[in-house]
Amino acid sequence: MKIYIEPIGRLINEFSKLPGVGTKTAQRYAYKIINMPTEEAKNFADAIMNVKKNVRYCSICGNFSESDICDVCKIRPNDTICVVKEPKDVIAIEKLNEYSGVYHVLHGTISPLDGIGPNDINIKGLLDRIAKGGVKEVIMATNPDVEGEATALYISNLLKPLGIKVSRLAHGIPIGTDLEYADEVSLARAFVDRKEL
Amino acid sequence: MKIYIEPIGRLINEFSKLPGVGTKTAQRYAYKIINMPTEEAKNFADAIMNVKKNVRYCSICGNFSESDICDVCKIRPNDTICVVKEPKDVIAIEKLNEYSGVYHVLHGTISPLDGIGPNDINIKGLLDRIAKGGVKEVIMATNPDVEGEATALYISNLLKPLGIKVSRLAHGIPIGTDLEYADEVSLARAFVDRKEL
Repeated sequence: MKIYIEPIGRLINEFSKLPGVGTKTAQRYAYKIINMPTEEAKNFADAIMNVKKNVRYCSICGNFSESDICDVCKIRPNDTICVVKEPKDVIAIEKLNEYSGVYHVLHGTISPLDGIGPNDINIKGLLDRIAKGGVKEVIMATNPDVEGEATALYISNLLKPLGIKVSRLAHGIPIGTDLEYADEVSLARAFVDRKEL
Repeated sequence: MKIYIEPIGRLINEFSKLPGVGTKTAQRYAYKIINMPTEEAKNFADAIMNVKKNVRYCSICGNFSESDICDVCKIRPNDTICVVKEPKDVIAIEKLNEYSGVYHVLHGTISPLDGIGPNDINIKGLLDRIAKGGVKEVIMATNPDVEGEATALYISNLLKPLGIKVSRLAHGIPIGTDLEYADEVSLARAFVDRKEL
């Protein structure tokens, strides 16, 4: 006898496609769906289809958007552009309520090992925006890993000759960390980038 | 500005309803859906609706089934009935390939604190099945917690006067555990239920 009847096996298989979800977790999720009222399960399924139908990328900055141009590009001044790897980075920054400029989503970072070069990510879109004028500063907010650093450096080398100020998010020891537990790279970086008090 | 656009916020909210899923995890799942091909997302949504439409409970044993009577009840001899709390317990036992009798799913255990009495779980169905004759042994495989033990005892007291053999899954120290790490209750139980070699 097969362990799961077909509809349950199929749903478990679908849930297993989610990141970090193994069979046991997928099984728990499937049971939750089975025990939901039909109306609630329908809302769940609708939300999945709805997101595929109504979420696209802003034609200016490449962030998630419901319309051709996203809400950020519509209303904010475009003299400062924060460059990030993925749309979810925009959300991480927006949560801070700290930054009031616009974004540019690269949809990737330069990674020769994975065969991703400068032309495979949205650098051209950034240059086009800058060519239209009005941009004073570009903040490179790519991840502090090898690919992120390389991408930041590459773009910075392209923009500096244009007279654009290019900055990079500060690295160092995270707030609230004990020195002894800080990772060595961050601690070393904190020494190099130390600030005068 | 709201952090998430509506379709994404809605999907994150739906994923948050799954057991053990917080906002961060729900967000990761939502991104995965956004980045799926539309066809794949459609299959996902379909699998959710399909499970609600096609999964019901077997009218004999109460396990998940696609038809009125489940595959187990259809083909297996009914002289041994294994009584479990939930359909997922059936799956756990089926995975062993050890048991070849039929099941009875109580859909709950007696729990006075939660207001669940013997009439709120499917004990009557079990008695009806036994009244039809042919049942020689009932194996109580409810969980080894207070409610599970109480339920096993309650049902056992009902069945013994009928001349049915009632057994209970063995408790003791799990295979592969060091004695020093075994929990005290299981270790104590292992002493009480010790077997002659």
